[in-house]
Amino acid sequence: MIDSKDLNNYSLLADFYEFTMGNGYYKSGQVDKIAYFDLFFRTIPDSGGFAIAAGLEQAIEYIRNIEFSDEDIDFLRSKGVFDEGFLSYLKNFKFECDIWAIPEGTPIFPGEPIMVVRGPIIQAQLMETMLLVTMNYQSLIATKANRIVRAAKGRPVFEFGSRRAQGYTGAILGARAAYIGGCLGTANTLSDRLYDIPAVGTMAHSWVQSFDSELDAFRMYARTYPDSCSLLIDTYDILHEGLPNAIKVFKEEIVTRGFRPKSVRLDSGDIAYLSKKIRRELDKNGFEDCGIMASNSLDEYVIDSLLKQGAQLDSFGVGERLITSKSDPVFGGVYKLTAIEDESGEIVPKIKISENTEKITTPGFKQIHRFFDKDTNAPIADVISLHDEDFNDLETMEIFHPVHTWKRKTISNFYTRKLLVPIFDKGELVYEKPTIKAIRDHAQSEIENLWDELKRFDRPHEYFVDLSQELWDLKNELLNKH
Amino acid sequence: MIDSKDLNNYSLLADFYEFTMGNGYYKSGQVDKIAYFDLFFRTIPDSGGFAIAAGLEQAIEYIRNIEFSDEDIDFLRSKGVFDEGFLSYLKNFKFECDIWAIPEGTPIFPGEPIMVVRGPIIQAQLMETMLLVTMNYQSLIATKANRIVRAAKGRPVFEFGSRRAQGYTGAILGARAAYIGGCLGTANTLSDRLYDIPAVGTMAHSWVQSFDSELDAFRMYARTYPDSCSLLIDTYDILHEGLPNAIKVFKEEIVTRGFRPKSVRLDSGDIAYLSKKIRRELDKNGFEDCGIMASNSLDEYVIDSLLKQGAQLDSFGVGERLITSKSDPVFGGVYKLTAIEDESGEIVPKIKISENTEKITTPGFKQIHRFFDKDTNAPIADVISLHDEDFNDLETMEIFHPVHTWKRKTISNFYTRKLLVPIFDKGELVYEKPTIKAIRDHAQSEIENLWDELKRFDRPHEYFVDLSQELWDLKNELLNKH
Repeated sequence: MIDSKDLNNYSLLADFYEFTMGNGYYKSGQVDKIAYFDLFFRTIPDSGGFAIAAGLEQAIEYIRNIEFSDEDIDFLRSKGVFDEGFLSYLKNFKFECDIWAIPEGTPIFPGEPIMVVRGPIIQAQLMETMLLVTMNYQSLIATKANRIVRAAKGRPVFEFGSRRAQGYTGAILGARAAYIGGCLGTANTLSDRLYDIPAVGTMAHSWVQSFDSELDAFRMYARTYPDSCSLLIDTYDILHEGLPNAIKVFKEEIVTRGFRPKSVRLDSGDIAYLSKKIRRELDKNGFEDCGIMASNSLDEYVIDSLLKQGAQLDSFGVGERLITSKSDPVFGGVYKLTAIEDESGEIVPKIKISENTEKITTPGFKQIHRFFDKDTNAPIADVISLHDEDFNDLETMEIFHPVHTWKRKTISNFYTRKLLVPIFDKGELVYEKPTIKAIRDHAQSEIENLWDELKRFDRPHEYFVDLSQELWDLKNELLNKH
Repeated sequence: MIDSKDLNNYSLLADFYEFTMGNGYYKSGQVDKIAYFDLFFRTIPDSGGFAIAAGLEQAIEYIRNIEFSDEDIDFLRSKGVFDEGFLSYLKNFKFECDIWAIPEGTPIFPGEPIMVVRGPIIQAQLMETMLLVTMNYQSLIATKANRIVRAAKGRPVFEFGSRRAQGYTGAILGARAAYIGGCLGTANTLSDRLYDIPAVGTMAHSWVQSFDSELDAFRMYARTYPDSCSLLIDTYDILHEGLPNAIKVFKEEIVTRGFRPKSVRLDSGDIAYLSKKIRRELDKNGFEDCGIMASNSLDEYVIDSLLKQGAQLDSFGVGERLITSKSDPVFGGVYKLTAIEDESGEIVPKIKISENTEKITTPGFKQIHRFFDKDTNAPIADVISLHDEDFNDLETMEIFHPVHTWKRKTISNFYTRKLLVPIFDKGELVYEKPTIKAIRDHAQSEIENLWDELKRFDRPHEYFVDLSQELWDLKNELLNKH
């Protein structure tokens, strides 16, 4: 039933309505109708000050592999609602869209199109679900990981959550996104093999239990890995067994072989209290260089609290609360039609109204301009504009709040960067994908430049995301018309 | 870099420590050491009264496909820590374990082994991560879906969350688990294609926006799907545009063609208020048989509240809060060593102690017996025992709380069922997998028989999960020894 080949092909990972609509466009002679869609999100998880874009590489992979096998077509035909002409259109699917996107690792803010798609409406519509699930999940985890990394204040954070991830690609791509967000590595071996995310790991409690005694288990592990010995010391009794056994084995098996022990790991108990006791014991025995690693349901809040309590910790393994972004597990990206082209090729902007005012969309074919302070390189504000506007040559610029328009501010001494860069041009990939290391470095330097007020957890500053005058006028014109 | 073939092979979706430990066992001559592991969970999500087992079919698929390609071995070799003998062991991997598991769709409770694995320690250890991620995620979603289905009180619930799922298998297998939990279908086309979960869908707001007017959009949709016409009526103004336009189109395009309209859908606004207004209008126009479907950030709490307010709703599309189990997105399954066999083949039970008492494990090779009332078929209690104990012939049985042992109860008029059934026997699959429909039916009838007190959301009854006297004695003996 499940052919493993099928599991690679995500072309049918689309809401069924993408196909019913596609069929409707086909039957009503709208195959060549050109539409514009924005992919954007509305709120930052965990009430944070910014999110981090991630997932573009996988979105590109998906698009390049869109195809419908004969079995897929037979399956769709069996639903009994699709026109044969539409099914042939799918069978001969040739991707023709233009796509712009914000590079991975870039800080992003609510309301900004992370991705803009222009193309035949059937095609642009069909990608909705996959583009969303791809960008939503990785952006969620990159954002969460960065919060945890910030809480750790320079101490290494490792992603340990595969077993509690929401499915396999959750585990695999979650590790990738966590690395972009600043984690130093993952427990997931497959993410290393596929995406070059460094995999790390030592032992589980089962290793210790499987031997006649903890001491035997530590000895055997130390002999196997004398140059990188990390011991998990909480299987039975941390202070009375685990730690003394570890110190004994460090002395007898590691030091005697000319090595230094790497670390001890704690996965339970009162970590603040225990870590101080352990630090003293290790130091007293000449192991000042032996690290203490903590795991056990950590997140940015727990890490922050542990460090404020003076916990003696050198690194963190963070599992379920990172890989699921437990405290806020949904990144609410949406994909909305913003314009169509009429028969003469003229762009006709479109809006979606809603009684929930936060669900009203911003119409038109757009670009985002990030304004940076020339002296500090700190981002000052983002302005969403129509696609061809440019502000780089201006000396000063008046920006204003898109709802409370009396809130105005004139900025100067800036340079701007267009955030949306070309990815596909008439179906051809025109983007050179950066290495994962380059993406991670990009994220790190971009976040470094952000104001500290955006990085705090408690009521962070709200970054300015404004509309250009031209775009604001357009939106209000359409709102007034309805 | 990413070969699509690689993406099917989850053999490396394992925490790196499974390999470092495996290598350690290999190097210390313990390739043939037999170990026993239990997969169990500790708390029911959302403080519910029970969870639902799901994921076994995918766990079996994973196990049957374990293999390490030459590229995988090269990758592991490049880590510089693995013995060549261990790498050949992996290259020639032959699965030899015995596995017992609770069939999918069965209600399960904290502390019960959902799966028991017996086999060569390297093999049994290696599967930890994949077995956990598989069982954790699907059990989480089946459990959540059933809560939402219960709240809907017989009205159909559809899974609409793919776009907000945590990765692709989150979307695909989440839809499968939601179906097991009682959903009637999914928006995800691929879950239908791969797992026979009925896919449904009509139109997005973009369909409406892409036409010159809402009326044109509705007309074209109705002409395309006259026999199953559902219209999304909240793109502009529900009561003043969407609903009147829908009624007009139902009359002009559906009724005239000899059909009846299926439904209208609401995705925003005050659904309780609007649904009553809409119901009245539809009825006034002779469309008493036209359903009203609601979507928009629903879950069991919102649905319960809507129905208590008298909302006139006939079906629900539930997205992000179902597919991520947003209110409690982690199913905390663990995989713990419970015994090894000594050289004479004798089972040596093993325990893991912890300062967090809830993290103490129950040792030994086990079975679970569910006691059913002979008259009502309602489950009375579960007793976890050593593997070969049997209680079916008893007339009465005294059960007792495993911690507060003075809490005792004598039960009678029961029959018992062993929950753990054989899946693999010395590496051979011996389980005939049920159809997805059979799994869903099994879940439905099992849940129907549960006491109502287990099914309520607010402080449900705590189901009895006790240890047999023999197992309790064994656990306490090991606890006292440490």
